[in-house]
Amino acid sequence: MPYQLHYWPTIQGRGEFVRLALEAAGASYVDVARGAEGKDVDAMLQFMESPQLTQPPFAPPFLIDGEVIVGQTAAILLYLGPRLGLVGKSERRRLWTHQIQLTIADLVAEAHDTHHPLGSGAYYEDQKKEAVARAKDFRLVRVPKFLAWFESLLARNPRKTRSSAHLVGGRLSYADLSLFQLVDGLLYAFPRATRRALKKAPLVAALHDSVAQHKRVAAYLASERRIAFNEEGIFRHYPELDG
Amino acid sequence: MPYQLHYWPTIQGRGEFVRLALEAAGASYVDVARGAEGKDVDAMLQFMESPQLTQPPFAPPFLIDGEVIVGQTAAILLYLGPRLGLVGKSERRRLWTHQIQLTIADLVAEAHDTHHPLGSGAYYEDQKKEAVARAKDFRLVRVPKFLAWFESLLARNPRKTRSSAHLVGGRLSYADLSLFQLVDGLLYAFPRATRRALKKAPLVAALHDSVAQHKRVAAYLASERRIAFNEEGIFRHYPELDG
Repeated sequence: MPYQLHYWPTIQGRGEFVRLALEAAGASYVDVARGAEGKDVDAMLQFMESPQLTQPPFAPPFLIDGEVIVGQTAAILLYLGPRLGLVGKSERRRLWTHQIQLTIADLVAEAHDTHHPLGSGAYYEDQKKEAVARAKDFRLVRVPKFLAWFESLLARNPRKTRSSAHLVGGRLSYADLSLFQLVDGLLYAFPRATRRALKKAPLVAALHDSVAQHKRVAAYLASERRIAFNEEGIFRHYPELDG
Repeated sequence: MPYQLHYWPTIQGRGEFVRLALEAAGASYVDVARGAEGKDVDAMLQFMESPQLTQPPFAPPFLIDGEVIVGQTAAILLYLGPRLGLVGKSERRRLWTHQIQLTIADLVAEAHDTHHPLGSGAYYEDQKKEAVARAKDFRLVRVPKFLAWFESLLARNPRKTRSSAHLVGGRLSYADLSLFQLVDGLLYAFPRATRRALKKAPLVAALHDSVAQHKRVAAYLASERRIAFNEEGIFRHYPELDG
């Protein structure tokens, strides 16, 4: 039975980290709220809010695999990783991959806050001045700090080769896919600042490019299944927030 | 060999979620940067930044258990849970407990942002006006939304009894301890708003109280090992941010 992914149908958002893992592994899945099997956003919300669920997800994305329902992006990847061959076999390797994923998730949350520093309750237009201040700290302090950490992981990976590098071990993991997505989002939202920051993180830049060329990922990115970045998602391009 | 916990020595912060798990289980551990074994914050930072680490933590807290180094609060609890008997045995139960933990972590991050909506780069005093706006959204929208979810989990737990409720199954898990800590922090930072919100989440309030009475937790909370809440941590009491 194919995996069922439930996520907002018009944005990449947090669901994209799950989509990328499913796509890179060539897994069979349906993106339910995008109209698969005749369902839509209402069906997703109705499911989420049904009072008989004993383990209701707090928010999309969530994944259904038979009787298993998992929410929280990082937890979904923790579950899918071994099943899709996107994480090592040992507990230590799985834990390390997950730790990286959680750190990626932290920067993703901060990327969201650049355009909504006063909270999601008000429109961007009504918190633009504050967004400019928050985005400056994000671009100048936070992004370089995180990228330097990812760069150090790639540089220190004992399985690094001249032609390719991965965050964990010698093979593609879901953390690589997520780092690709994070960098891709930053390049969309803050193209000038991110290109500048990537000059100091050449291994991160190379990983981003090599993931984009991964056969199944490349096919996905070129397909209609890849929703374009837009100003409803987490990574939004507002030129006034770029450096 | 005792677990080594590395965290800032003067705040509860994210390290507190790990301390609570270790304390509730009666585990043997040293809180390194608090002067255990003659070490301090410098020793923690020096370790973290040593270039020969292939799996360097991004930030405290991190845990050392023999050769294993784990960073990220939720990943530390994922690792410790089974070892401390603070999570169920099946993969599904562990995943569910972890999913709850990640959702708790989301609200913890938002609690931090109430006093630093423009980023950690500037003092609270220099972003007070923005903090007032962000805290209002947090108090009126975010906290009730999250508490309602936790309440629903407690209400729906099939193993709930009349005298006690747990988030997962019929026994104490690290998610219960973390929800205690979240509520405790909210009660410190936003006493008026949180007491109001808890009236609509009586099972959450009861869980908070029952964890505080857990024998080992109560002994810990009364000890000098429990650092008092203060205005350097995540949960800060600024009366102007309360409702």
